[in-house]
Formats: sequence, structure tokens, C-alpha cells
Amino acid sequence: MNMNAEELYAALLKSDLIGLQFPATIKVGAFNINLDKADVVGNIMQEWLEGWLKKNGVDYSPNPNSQMPPDFYLNPDNLKEDLLEVKAFNYKATPGFDIADFNAYQSELIEKPYMLCSKYLIFGYVMQDDGYVVIKKMWLKNVWEICRPMANWPLNLQVKDKVVHKIRPGKWYSTGKTKFRQFETMEDFISAIYETVYQNPKTREESGEWFSRFKASYKKLYKKSITVPRWSEIEGKYKL
Amino acid sequence: MNMNAEELYAALLKSDLIGLQFPATIKVGAFNINLDKADVVGNIMQEWLEGWLKKNGVDYSPNPNSQMPPDFYLNPDNLKEDLLEVKAFNYKATPGFDIADFNAYQSELIEKPYMLCSKYLIFGYVMQDDGYVVIKKMWLKNVWEICRPMANWPLNLQVKDKVVHKIRPGKWYSTGKTKFRQFETMEDFISAIYETVYQNPKTREESGEWFSRFKASYKKLYKKSITVPRWSEIEGKYKL
Repeated sequence: MNMNAEELYAALLKSDLIGLQFPATIKVGAFNINLDKADVVGNIMQEWLEGWLKKNGVDYSPNPNSQMPPDFYLNPDNLKEDLLEVKAFNYKATPGFDIADFNAYQSELIEKPYMLCSKYLIFGYVMQDDGYVVIKKMWLKNVWEICRPMANWPLNLQVKDKVVHKIRPGKWYSTGKTKFRQFETMEDFISAIYETVYQNPKTREESGEWFSRFKASYKKLYKKSITVPRWSEIEGKYKL
Repeated sequence: MNMNAEELYAALLKSDLIGLQFPATIKVGAFNINLDKADVVGNIMQEWLEGWLKKNGVDYSPNPNSQMPPDFYLNPDNLKEDLLEVKAFNYKATPGFDIADFNAYQSELIEKPYMLCSKYLIFGYVMQDDGYVVIKKMWLKNVWEICRPMANWPLNLQVKDKVVHKIRPGKWYSTGKTKFRQFETMEDFISAIYETVYQNPKTREESGEWFSRFKASYKKLYKKSITVPRWSEIEGKYKL
């Protein structure tokens, strides 16, 4: 049976996923290892989802390379469509997962513009006082809907010793006051990536080429042009 | 109490680590999640080690950023010495962990040549038929002692769609026939990195600059020059 990401999300909402719980620690020798602290709830939920897909007869291919995106291909006949990423984070903290390494991501987008259309299935869990992990929330998002700028950059980046590392998600579900908004469109997200390629000393020289190559690659695949606004025109929408 | 990596390794050999076992699956809802398949034994053993360090009063700092190397600083007063990486892999398969993303690694070596001196504490586990993970082996290695060339590259690389991704370890403990040998010295390893920077289209242009910057940075930190052989002079030692 084929299911795209939206159908999968709808089916999971009807399942017993929300409320699913399992022990938050495993005993290893003398120590109780906390699965949240060990950063492994995401991997465990990914395996859980694979079990669910199999049990429900849903077609998929796992990525033969488990350390590369995407986590699942929901259309095994077309590996450029219906890509699915699975993420999980402690909902009482800030989203702790990475979107991607920035340099790898900008470079891969040129070869694989369809990565922009990957869907993110995200589980929000809590660590209960009774020692259980409980899945409380689930979202299905486009990548731009979970990304936002930060103070000095058009994307929320992990920058260490002036070197740009990972793209980090925003708090897309927050209802409180925030200084930054998540992106509204793929085009605005591309504008932020382009500006980051330019702003990052490591990629600045190639920024002009990056943009033309990306546009050409996008047009070749989707048979239509993408119109990307300048960052200066849209920055105000996302920095409050 | 201070312990460098060698002292830690000796202490762990005397402890009950070898033979340590824990259930290989955890039950999450309707499914039994296999910890090996979910790639989480390494994270769990890293948490185990942190528990062990605490219990035994060994000084350390965890990396505030759990997703970046190193896993531990064994000398909290000098973050350029006594860096420790913790890895684990299924000993019945091929070492499945990554050393680093190649592009990030070559670029970071210029800023932080001391990363070359990070020690790798590696656990080899088996998945027993009775449903337990058992720690069978432990090694303490320098990075070059677990790296080797591959057929078309001076390092064992994960190359996907002609793009260089991760540096992968060799099978350093193998006693069988192999086509490639692990590096004998840091200098030979640097030669292989330099050659890879040159061979990789993405970094080729900057390869001359990379090498001079690395040498300058190394000399500045260690107050001595490093003499690196040409790849063509040593290739025969490592490709059989």
C-alpha cells in the first residue's frame, strides 16, 4: 500500500501513537542510562515507525545509509518524491535535533533540489516523573516551516569558533513572544540559504555560482523556474 | 582524580567492563526495538562511561555540544589535550561508526591540529542469541591507527553521487588477508588527508593552501615542525 507523508500522518493520528510510553532508562551494568540524555529517542522512534509501516503494509524503502537523509522513501519507485525525515525531541526543552550540516546542505541542494520537499515527521515527548517517555505531540512539517533566522544570520545556525556548523530548528509551536518567525514559503527559505552562503566566509566566493546552479537545477527537475526574493526585502517579516 | 586516556583504558581493563551485558531490545508499544539496528549502542556506552567516570571520581568535562567531537575532555584545565572519542560497533560486522565528515575534518584540523591527538576508546560488542548485547572487546587507538586507504582514495571514504562524505574506519583488528593497511604514523595519515584534499574536486583548489596552513598551525601549537611524506612515496606501504 502506498501512503504519502500526509496520509501517513493522518493514519498515525488515528493510531495509538499519541500517549505511547516506554521506560526512559535502560539498565546497563551498574548504571541507569537515560535515553533522553543519550540522544537516542529519535533513533528509537524511527525504528518504531519502521515497525509500524511494516505491520500496516505500507510501502517504503529505508535509506541504505542510515546516517544520511532521508530516513525513509515513501515512494520506493521514485526516490525524488515523498522523502520523509523522522525527528523527536524533548517537548519540555527546545527542539534539540539538527536539520542538517549547513555546508553539506547548501551543497546537496544544488544536486538534489527535491530535498526541499522532504517532509519532517516530528515527535514531541516528555520525560515523566514516573520514569517513562511519553509521546505527547506529533507534527508534519516542511523544512522551511521549522526554520527561522537568528540575530546575526538569516538561519538559526550553530556557529562555533566562527565556523558555521548545523542548521537548527526554531520553536515553531511556540505561542509565546518570539523575536523570530519561521519561514512562510520555500522561496523565502531559499533566500535565507542564499544569504547565508554569502555571509559565511567559507562559501562567500561561490555564492553567485551557488544561486545560479540551484535555480538551473530546480528548473531542470520541476520544469518551472523558482523566483526567490532578496533577503533584504523579506528580512523584516521574520525578524520582529 | 586525573586520568589520561591510557590510564583510563588500563583501569577499564581491570573493571568488569569486558563481559558487561544488557538487553539488546527495548519494548516500545507493540514493537521490540533492536538497539544495534537503531545505531544507539555507542550513545549508551558513552553514557555508561560518564557514569563510570563519576562513580570513580575521575575528572572530565563532557562536550557542551553533544553532537560535536570530542565526547570527553579528560583534562578539564586544558581542552587541547587528552581529548577522548568513544565509539562502539557490532564486532561480528564491519566497524560501522564514522570517524568524521571529511570536509569538516580537514577544515577543522587547520584550526585545531590537536584533534589529531584525540584518543579513540572503542567498544566491540556482539548481539547474543539470548537477546543480550555483550561487550567483548575494547581498544584504545590513535585516529591514524584505525584509518586506511581504499581503492581509489588515500582514505576509506563514503562517496555518494561523487560527493565525499564521511571518513570510515578500517578493520584494524583483522588478522585475515586485507588489501589495505592502517596508517603507521600521524605523518602518513596527514599525507593521506592532504592527497584527499587534492583529489576531492570540492577542495582541490585550496589544497596547497590547506597544507601550508596546517603546517603553520601545527608548528605554532607544538613549537616544532611536522615533516609529511608525499603520498606517492608511502602509498605502497598501505595498498597491498
